[in-house]
Amino acid sequence: MPELRKDPITGRWVIISTERIKRPSDFQVERAVVIREEHCPFCHGHEGMTPPEVFAFRNGSAPNTPGWDLRVVPNKFPALQVEGTLDREGEGLFDRMNGIGAHEVIIETPDHQKSLATMSEPEIERVLWAFRERVLDLKKDIRFRYILVFKNHGAAAGATLEHSHSQLIALPIVPDFVREEIEGARRHFTAKERCVFCDIIRQEVTAGRRVVHENADVVALAPYASRFPFEMWMLPRSHGSRFEDAPRQVYENLSRMLKWVLVRMNRALESPPYNLIIHTSPMSGDAGDFYHWHVELMPKLTRTAGFEWGTGFYINPTSPEEATEVLRGVKV
Amino acid sequence: MPELRKDPITGRWVIISTERIKRPSDFQVERAVVIREEHCPFCHGHEGMTPPEVFAFRNGSAPNTPGWDLRVVPNKFPALQVEGTLDREGEGLFDRMNGIGAHEVIIETPDHQKSLATMSEPEIERVLWAFRERVLDLKKDIRFRYILVFKNHGAAAGATLEHSHSQLIALPIVPDFVREEIEGARRHFTAKERCVFCDIIRQEVTAGRRVVHENADVVALAPYASRFPFEMWMLPRSHGSRFEDAPRQVYENLSRMLKWVLVRMNRALESPPYNLIIHTSPMSGDAGDFYHWHVELMPKLTRTAGFEWGTGFYINPTSPEEATEVLRGVKV
Repeated sequence: MPELRKDPITGRWVIISTERIKRPSDFQVERAVVIREEHCPFCHGHEGMTPPEVFAFRNGSAPNTPGWDLRVVPNKFPALQVEGTLDREGEGLFDRMNGIGAHEVIIETPDHQKSLATMSEPEIERVLWAFRERVLDLKKDIRFRYILVFKNHGAAAGATLEHSHSQLIALPIVPDFVREEIEGARRHFTAKERCVFCDIIRQEVTAGRRVVHENADVVALAPYASRFPFEMWMLPRSHGSRFEDAPRQVYENLSRMLKWVLVRMNRALESPPYNLIIHTSPMSGDAGDFYHWHVELMPKLTRTAGFEWGTGFYINPTSPEEATEVLRGVKV
Repeated sequence: MPELRKDPITGRWVIISTERIKRPSDFQVERAVVIREEHCPFCHGHEGMTPPEVFAFRNGSAPNTPGWDLRVVPNKFPALQVEGTLDREGEGLFDRMNGIGAHEVIIETPDHQKSLATMSEPEIERVLWAFRERVLDLKKDIRFRYILVFKNHGAAAGATLEHSHSQLIALPIVPDFVREEIEGARRHFTAKERCVFCDIIRQEVTAGRRVVHENADVVALAPYASRFPFEMWMLPRSHGSRFEDAPRQVYENLSRMLKWVLVRMNRALESPPYNLIIHTSPMSGDAGDFYHWHVELMPKLTRTAGFEWGTGFYINPTSPEEATEVLRGVKV
């Protein structure tokens, strides 16, 4: 059973999940495995190679058979386990609970060759709708406090399979980065009675220097204090704290924006590995007034990540103004 | 001039240092450069290839000539700049200041072939004394709030040169991870009138399951909520908030401990890349009662770093109890 443990100094929760890798020597062989189409568990016709699906977009065909556009399946090597109780307990100074949670894989397309950047806008939108469906379903489980939806693209960004997919982890705790963002947004609201993200959108759209692209519902910008070269945030213009409550046209315009940004990023930076993360409100607590859901995209271009995750301290060699200029200038 | 920028939501400071990499295409070629001894700027006899030294252990020879055991030089591609004023200013919601600071390289040995693990204990101790000398000198500059001393070993951990070296960055701000640790330690002290690190040492030494090794002055343990496989903390037994104020025998025993741990880590994990970070108090503020300086060591074994620095959320496939057992069992 995986375990959740809390650091008594920083309050940071960590998943200790020893099911996945057994011996220390296994680390040395953890390489990007290139699996060809004929052996890819995410390809059309290979439905039997994954755990049974929990959701799919299908044209009338039976579950776990061919004839689908998108499938969601439990992760075969889950970091957390759905069955069981939390069994919170202390051990002197330390706090732990059972690693209860859901860990799902969204297989974004049956086509091994496609990526989010090469999909059509409606295909990208389908991925967002699948995220929404799964979040709405998992929200019913009162054990979960946060649902993390993310995508690792490319081996250097943590993807172990090449076939385009995203992941979802439902957690019984609120992770660190969410806690910090929520607290920061709350401080701003308490002081000014305004959402800090709405304030940023207003200021940036007026200034323009860091706005990468805009459409009717979504603004893409290179954040002022970017941690990474070409870090980009995509924010809905209208305030809302939860990804899953967004109106239909916001998904439509977010899909357009993702396509626009990914195509240009791939052109400018030679298709880099990247991480994409949906930042949304925790299940409990009311962050409705002061939190503003959005998408963060971080191409993995530099090699200094080791230092950065060790210190929480970031040195970014590309200014967001420079990144904005480069992306705006890409000819497609 | 590099710039320090603050994220208005989380309060996180970032260095935007565009001096180092100019064009986006440069990212694609950022590889581990293997420089052979005859062209290595850190090798004996190549003193003219570095900026003039700011400190050295020498046997009477003139600065910037051969005949040294250890040299400290300014980083040739500094993330921050020593000359100038901070010029703090706002830009609407955003806060910035000039990127004033020091960025130095500690060349730990004249020998291209040596690493911290293969040096003798007195040679390792010399490195710690050099850290101390530089911290004591840079502390005199009242513009600096924090001095970060760290080591990236191996390309995957962010090292760009193979020759054994550490780095030091003096900063006009307190970085995130330090702020969080200090705040957490303060909360514990406020509640209990005890140092949380002293409490952890007491509990762990009694329990024993996560104690990797002990000597008269230093305890090495795998932290309860380890973020990474084989993460290790080395803590002085006696309370003290500043690395640079530690008594001589603590440096001596820390050197012994580093040697013990690195030799075994290299044996067990096939000489992995790693990051080593000295956690110490900020220059200002009095953390004397509640903060406890220590060293954190993080071998870089997994590939999921991209996800982890993006989310602040950690999934660790090796329990600290397992890591402790493996390291204790290594035959040397």
